Amino acid sequence: MENIASQLSIVGAGPGEPDLITLKAIKVLKTADVVLYDALANEALLEYVPPTAVKVFVGKRAGMHYRQQREINKMIVNYAKTFGHVVRLKGGDPYVFGRGHEEMEYAAQHGLSTQYVPGISSALAVPGLSGIPLTKRGINESFWVVTGTLKDHSTAKDLYYAAQSSATVVILMGVKKLPEIVTLFKQYRGEEEDIALIQNGSKPDEKSMVGKLGNILALQEKEKIAAPAIIVIGAVVRERVESLRSLVEEQVI
Amino acid sequence: MENIASQLSIVGAGPGEPDLITLKAIKVLKTADVVLYDALANEALLEYVPPTAVKVFVGKRAGMHYRQQREINKMIVNYAKTFGHVVRLKGGDPYVFGRGHEEMEYAAQHGLSTQYVPGISSALAVPGLSGIPLTKRGINESFWVVTGTLKDHSTAKDLYYAAQSSATVVILMGVKKLPEIVTLFKQYRGEEEDIALIQNGSKPDEKSMVGKLGNILALQEKEKIAAPAIIVIGAVVRERVESLRSLVEEQVI
Repeated sequence: MENIASQLSIVGAGPGEPDLITLKAIKVLKTADVVLYDALANEALLEYVPPTAVKVFVGKRAGMHYRQQREINKMIVNYAKTFGHVVRLKGGDPYVFGRGHEEMEYAAQHGLSTQYVPGISSALAVPGLSGIPLTKRGINESFWVVTGTLKDHSTAKDLYYAAQSSATVVILMGVKKLPEIVTLFKQYRGEEEDIALIQNGSKPDEKSMVGKLGNILALQEKEKIAAPAIIVIGAVVRERVESLRSLVEEQVI
Repeated sequence: MENIASQLSIVGAGPGEPDLITLKAIKVLKTADVVLYDALANEALLEYVPPTAVKVFVGKRAGMHYRQQREINKMIVNYAKTFGHVVRLKGGDPYVFGRGHEEMEYAAQHGLSTQYVPGISSALAVPGLSGIPLTKRGINESFWVVTGTLKDHSTAKDLYYAAQSSATVVILMGVKKLPEIVTLFKQYRGEEEDIALIQNGSKPDEKSMVGKLGNILALQEKEKIAAPAIIVIGAVVRERVESLRSLVEEQVI
């Protein structure tokens, strides 16, 4: 048992569509002895894992015991010391609001060798797949990704600076706070600023809504976009509509 | 000729390491009739392209004619109408400072069907691969990606808001403006704020430097990090050092 090379690979699974995983992630999954995966990662990706590997779901799911972060950290170390190579498969990118670095650090402190395999972040790809580029020459030159949970004062303060900037602002986990977010951004960007809500981005059941700060709450009242969804605020949102319009015109010709 | 299905796929090649391309990108490259690629995409990726496909370098390279964006747009449409499926392979993600959406829009306006295939953005993966998570629970809850070219007033203004926020700030193409950037950020975040410079991220010749706003200019004076490099400013930079220290302690035990 002492000679097992205990290893943790923290692997990004991408935004949901199974083909949006990297080749490197697939290669790593193929050498897994244990896979710990959460609800955000597409379960189709488990087909790359050897049939002999241990597969454990550690995410949140209704009616199930929710595992604390501390418990997951211990599982990683125990599994690695028993079986060898543990792959921690996470939705999106493990270092973007993913707690991936906490698990990495705990594993390193307990003697595991560690590896980070980046994934396509939903924060960037979901707007992109929906037709919205986060930056566009002549429109803006920065983007800001923030959680909408607004738990602590600093996040609220960051949103306040974001609203004043010309950045495209991407808000994760913010749908429940939409009224507060709209009020804040309207103050600095006005009623006509563009906004999009995208639910289940990159998945077959994607649903989205495009509007202005001035009417998005009314639109949301009629046709609910439910959490988890991504909010995008900025003039680039309009690019999506124009691009679609171009396609429609083309079909008319 | 009229029956050819003219198609443009704009594909992200990722940050440099060839295995950090997505499975979807590989599948798309395998069906290419023409590939237009720039200098940022790793040329090893061209091995996925059918041998019969036309491969054209359209990036910037010393001593070569530099193609204007307008010229590339026209090449895409002409190649697609002549050969069918054009793949535009770009480093990182095509919608992050990539002009990908401009090409997409032009192609759609000229009757091509279009597809966006996201890539791993260097802005996120290069810090991550270097050991720096862009967000970490208890440290910060947002990150801001901005170009450091500071060409227009709005970018400069965005940096001014970014400096005041608690966001991790990732600055692309900013090394030449490092003194101005340091002066601005010191004003709001102080001498002790952490900063990293990463050159050739994710490639075998990666070189990086970690310091504080108070000493980074002196460090850079001694050991030059050359452009293109990525600048990361924020407390998460320190996580990298602590994580490495943990590894060293572990080896001592």
